[in-house]
Amino acid sequence: MTEALIEQWQQRADRALDRWLPTAETLPQRLHQAMRYAVFNGGKRVRPVLTYAAGQALGVAPEHLDAPATAVELIHAYSLVHDDLPAMDDDDLRRGQPTVHRAFDEATAILCGDALQSLAFYVLARHLDPQIPAAQRLQMLDDLALASGSRGMAGGQAIDLGAVGRELNIAELENMHIHKTGALIRASVKLGALCRPGIDPDTLHQLDHYAKCIGLAFQIQDDILDVEGDTETLGKARGADLARNKPTYPALLGLEGARDLAAELLDDALGSLAAWDDQAEALRWIARYIVQRTH
Amino acid sequence: MTEALIEQWQQRADRALDRWLPTAETLPQRLHQAMRYAVFNGGKRVRPVLTYAAGQALGVAPEHLDAPATAVELIHAYSLVHDDLPAMDDDDLRRGQPTVHRAFDEATAILCGDALQSLAFYVLARHLDPQIPAAQRLQMLDDLALASGSRGMAGGQAIDLGAVGRELNIAELENMHIHKTGALIRASVKLGALCRPGIDPDTLHQLDHYAKCIGLAFQIQDDILDVEGDTETLGKARGADLARNKPTYPALLGLEGARDLAAELLDDALGSLAAWDDQAEALRWIARYIVQRTH
Repeated sequence: MTEALIEQWQQRADRALDRWLPTAETLPQRLHQAMRYAVFNGGKRVRPVLTYAAGQALGVAPEHLDAPATAVELIHAYSLVHDDLPAMDDDDLRRGQPTVHRAFDEATAILCGDALQSLAFYVLARHLDPQIPAAQRLQMLDDLALASGSRGMAGGQAIDLGAVGRELNIAELENMHIHKTGALIRASVKLGALCRPGIDPDTLHQLDHYAKCIGLAFQIQDDILDVEGDTETLGKARGADLARNKPTYPALLGLEGARDLAAELLDDALGSLAAWDDQAEALRWIARYIVQRTH
Repeated sequence: MTEALIEQWQQRADRALDRWLPTAETLPQRLHQAMRYAVFNGGKRVRPVLTYAAGQALGVAPEHLDAPATAVELIHAYSLVHDDLPAMDDDDLRRGQPTVHRAFDEATAILCGDALQSLAFYVLARHLDPQIPAAQRLQMLDDLALASGSRGMAGGQAIDLGAVGRELNIAELENMHIHKTGALIRASVKLGALCRPGIDPDTLHQLDHYAKCIGLAFQIQDDILDVEGDTETLGKARGADLARNKPTYPALLGLEGARDLAAELLDDALGSLAAWDDQAEALRWIARYIVQRTH
């Protein structure tokens, strides 16, 4: 039931992305082809699904959530393209396919990421439902820009690069992930909530606590899967982070300790939704999925 | 008189940039240092000055223009950082100083550009004057995002990269520049105008025609200076574009033909402001400066 809903949202996000990405025939074609290649790479659309789920929990119709759902995925897609570049993580494969700079070239990959970021803000500024109060629409742009920039995702990537080959303690590791992946996951939930006219600060706060917990849990589970998973399932080399001497939760806490922490965060996330009705069921399902997924 | 005003706006833009860029001590420090290095590189602030001048022509107070003036300069600064990267133009110097990837490293330069772009949208979403109608504020974000992305500046850079070593005709060359530099110059003027509450479409259209003309004239003059100028004045190797076999106006039209075209565009730009009063004097001054500058 909930699973079917999630699948509908994934498809809905794909359709919205397809609608708002310039076609592959639009000039300059190579750039637009690269943008589409980057976005339609078999991603699970975790962030858009969170946007739809947060909106659904507050009674917002899915058609009013397409713009923020698309925007957060475009930011995510751009970050993957740039993270994969030779000067960054230097990855040849993403989900078993050549990364953008491999399938196209490095210059195109840089511009592709740049243009996907612009498009995210364009979609928000242009396609948000006019029934959403303008102040809330501007707040969404404010939140997404903050979450994407040097005090959010890009800052987290900078912390990550600075941490390679260095010992981090658990607080430093958490700080890195709060920025690198946490900020955009929180924005994904918050933007969905901001589609609800007159949304109150208390509700926003509960959702934000939920998002904070699952954001961190998501990263811990990623680290666990990186140790446990095999190359075929993940589409990248097993233990890639360990091999690169990147700090991970299993390295710091052991596999068991990392699993315990993920379970605690799941409880905490579910706790913040304790008083919510059935409409929040999708948010609960996603929290469980994040910690229990095997790929 | 007008020159003193322009200088005040340059300083005003510098102060606003300094205020809204995170300090060099903000974590992650290296990233924030790179962002400040990229922005405070002795640039002439042509785009912010255009924003202030367009606002001034419509009676908008300068303090209401700080946010859009900052935003357009942040987009410009990010584009220079990414354009200079080894995979793009591979430039070691910018205004006589090491480029960001030389002064820092390539990964930091990529993230620096990414974060400057996010910051541009953040400043617009967060710091626009609340007295500007929300619909006009959203329109500014819409315009800036479109001008920056694959159908604007990033697209122009992609066309440029695809044109190296290839013969372009004059229409193709113009199309490249309309995207690569023209779109952001037009946005700089339009954002200033959108700070005027209730701005009408006719006025916007006149200003946009002015901006289109000076945007192209700016590029032609750049090409002319590239042929004429010396390394010391420009801070980059003379004839760098020609040496790289990049298409230029002097290469296609001859030096005289390029100068004639720039003069025609100047006339056209001034013509669109013919009915405007003294408040538009700064816009006229900038148009003349763009074509007559020697560096």
